[in-house]
Amino acid sequence: MTEQRSTHITWHEGHVRREDRERLLGQRGVTVWLTGLSGSGKSTVAVGAERELVSRGHLAYVLDGDNIRHGLNKNLGFSPEDRSENIRRIGEVAKLFTDAGVIVFTSFISPYRADRDAVRTLMKPGDFVEVHVAADVAVCEERDVKGLYRKARAGEIPEFTGVSAPYEAPEHPELVLDTARESVEESVERLVRYLEEKGYLSA
Amino acid sequence: MTEQRSTHITWHEGHVRREDRERLLGQRGVTVWLTGLSGSGKSTVAVGAERELVSRGHLAYVLDGDNIRHGLNKNLGFSPEDRSENIRRIGEVAKLFTDAGVIVFTSFISPYRADRDAVRTLMKPGDFVEVHVAADVAVCEERDVKGLYRKARAGEIPEFTGVSAPYEAPEHPELVLDTARESVEESVERLVRYLEEKGYLSA
Repeated sequence: MTEQRSTHITWHEGHVRREDRERLLGQRGVTVWLTGLSGSGKSTVAVGAERELVSRGHLAYVLDGDNIRHGLNKNLGFSPEDRSENIRRIGEVAKLFTDAGVIVFTSFISPYRADRDAVRTLMKPGDFVEVHVAADVAVCEERDVKGLYRKARAGEIPEFTGVSAPYEAPEHPELVLDTARESVEESVERLVRYLEEKGYLSA
Repeated sequence: MTEQRSTHITWHEGHVRREDRERLLGQRGVTVWLTGLSGSGKSTVAVGAERELVSRGHLAYVLDGDNIRHGLNKNLGFSPEDRSENIRRIGEVAKLFTDAGVIVFTSFISPYRADRDAVRTLMKPGDFVEVHVAADVAVCEERDVKGLYRKARAGEIPEFTGVSAPYEAPEHPELVLDTARESVEESVERLVRYLEEKGYLSA
């Protein structure tokens, strides 16, 4: 290919580095992995933290059932293999967003330790922040915002986490949010403060 | 849950809107889908455009074989079904990046019109920009940067696009880059100018 001079483009070889995007955004890319029971407050905390960060000028994005289950993972069911593949794909997508410099929150029950640990293994140290949204099943069942616990107790939903399927709590999460005892605002504030103190909000 | 006052967090309901992120980034999220033969220059153009945009302060990101085939799509082979699923997943991920406000370039041969059109259908009008990187097979084979055409002619790679498998050119691409006749710099400049003229580089 002939070399040609261009008036506008200065040519460089290779990909933009992650650090270049992070400098542009004034933040470090990170995957904040929220795990907890249905009704524990994962999505509410994720959406609250997203809003707080964007209002401070940071680029944050939430991956949750709304944009994953009907899109990327719409061809997955609820067999053990499909549940693992569900989490694996979400982890790979979160890794791409992290590489792009985005602060990405994932909001999925993700009940199995092995699946979450596999995602952690995909990433560089510091790129994966596991947050246990730790309201226990009694609290979540009492709230039962979507009526799912009632249906699960009635046997209408098989293998419902916390009722008829296990939830394996994280052993060494970076952060625990006790959403049974603290308000959503407090949880969001603690999460954002964690990201700030660990240096994710500057580049 | 009790309402509590927080000193730092102003609480709002619901997700940040795409427009909020776009205003923050000063750009419109878009999927720029580069399609063309092996060796046509897709990746070189994608990486060049990414660099030019980031140097102008825009957030751009490339999805290509490097970050997809060994990650999200590592459990896919080369059967017709797996090839379609490969493109489908890439389309869904590109849609997420677009929703996050990112200018995402995808660099995959994506030889089948039906697969590309399915991705277009996923997106809102204007969110999907199909770019035909249109060097023909003679030019790509003469370059043969990776030695793949030689191997394909020797029968060492079955179903190689342009040699032993079809390439279905786009019928109505938003842009055609004739990388056989113009330099990489010219192609990059034309692509960036297209994005500028169509308003993607402001919010």
